[in-house]
Amino acid sequence: MTDTSTRELLLSRIRDVADYPKPGVVFKDITPLLADPKAFTALTDALAELCARYGATKIVGLEARGFILAAPVAVRAGVGFIPVRKAGKLPGATLAQSYDLEYGSAEIEIHAEDLDSGDRVLVIDDVLATGGTAEASLELVRRAGARVVGVAVLMELGFLGGRARLEPVLDGAPLEALITL
Amino acid sequence: MTDTSTRELLLSRIRDVADYPKPGVVFKDITPLLADPKAFTALTDALAELCARYGATKIVGLEARGFILAAPVAVRAGVGFIPVRKAGKLPGATLAQSYDLEYGSAEIEIHAEDLDSGDRVLVIDDVLATGGTAEASLELVRRAGARVVGVAVLMELGFLGGRARLEPVLDGAPLEALITL
Repeated sequence: MTDTSTRELLLSRIRDVADYPKPGVVFKDITPLLADPKAFTALTDALAELCARYGATKIVGLEARGFILAAPVAVRAGVGFIPVRKAGKLPGATLAQSYDLEYGSAEIEIHAEDLDSGDRVLVIDDVLATGGTAEASLELVRRAGARVVGVAVLMELGFLGGRARLEPVLDGAPLEALITL
Repeated sequence: MTDTSTRELLLSRIRDVADYPKPGVVFKDITPLLADPKAFTALTDALAELCARYGATKIVGLEARGFILAAPVAVRAGVGFIPVRKAGKLPGATLAQSYDLEYGSAEIEIHAEDLDSGDRVLVIDDVLATGGTAEASLELVRRAGARVVGVAVLMELGFLGGRARLEPVLDGAPLEALITL
């Protein structure tokens, strides 16, 4: 488990930005954490520990901030890194999954050949908000034939209900948040 | 220097995708490299060695594929990671720089407070093509008050002339490409 001092270090490097991206919203900015090598290393170690605990063979990172967290974990843990990107950004043959936004919808993609039935995947993103992107990424991983062994985020914004939304599609896999706000 | 066997390993994991993003273009796809832990680790080590050689105190990574390469290097080298993002994505007070595209222009941003006059910055991206994004990122780093000690990319597409474009703005700092095509 992530110990209290690690959690306190990580939390101390997350900055509140008022009225971003729109009035009334307080944005949780992780850039101070990324700029602090001690905190970024502690974050990487904590996520790599989850990778080992769940026996993940691949890390899936979600564009774009998820890339920043997931890529160092893949290198640290010595497993492959697979990007899930916004539609149109991956050059090869892809699987696509759309999900609802507050207004309209968006689509994410994965290279179909990047996973197979032997793969155990840990999905990593920076924040769990409403859970729409995470839910779509779980669909993509499974449609590519692999098994989801967990979802890990730095921060869970509990009041947005993402955990309840993900519960039915986690299929017993753990949802790990290093910090819950 | 990156040895021949490392270069060959990296090169063997870059895939040509014909007619992407448009007919007649051959896209260099790095996702097979990212999916191979041995290759991704070798890439991270090679870039971290450059970080040490030039005494960088911060790594600047360019959205979005640059994040995937730069973040593990920052963690490996034990220095801070600073993202340069497309306009409107950073929540704090930013500096912005526009650059020309084939049609129109684009704008990238950095958090103004993330760098100071004591910082020595290595800028990392996956590909050097025409050099427009790299040039704009150098401007941002300098406007933030820091010194550029180098630009490092996995791949330089030599026929696009990015090196010649960057030369005048490098101000003596090295431009390192692990692979030149």
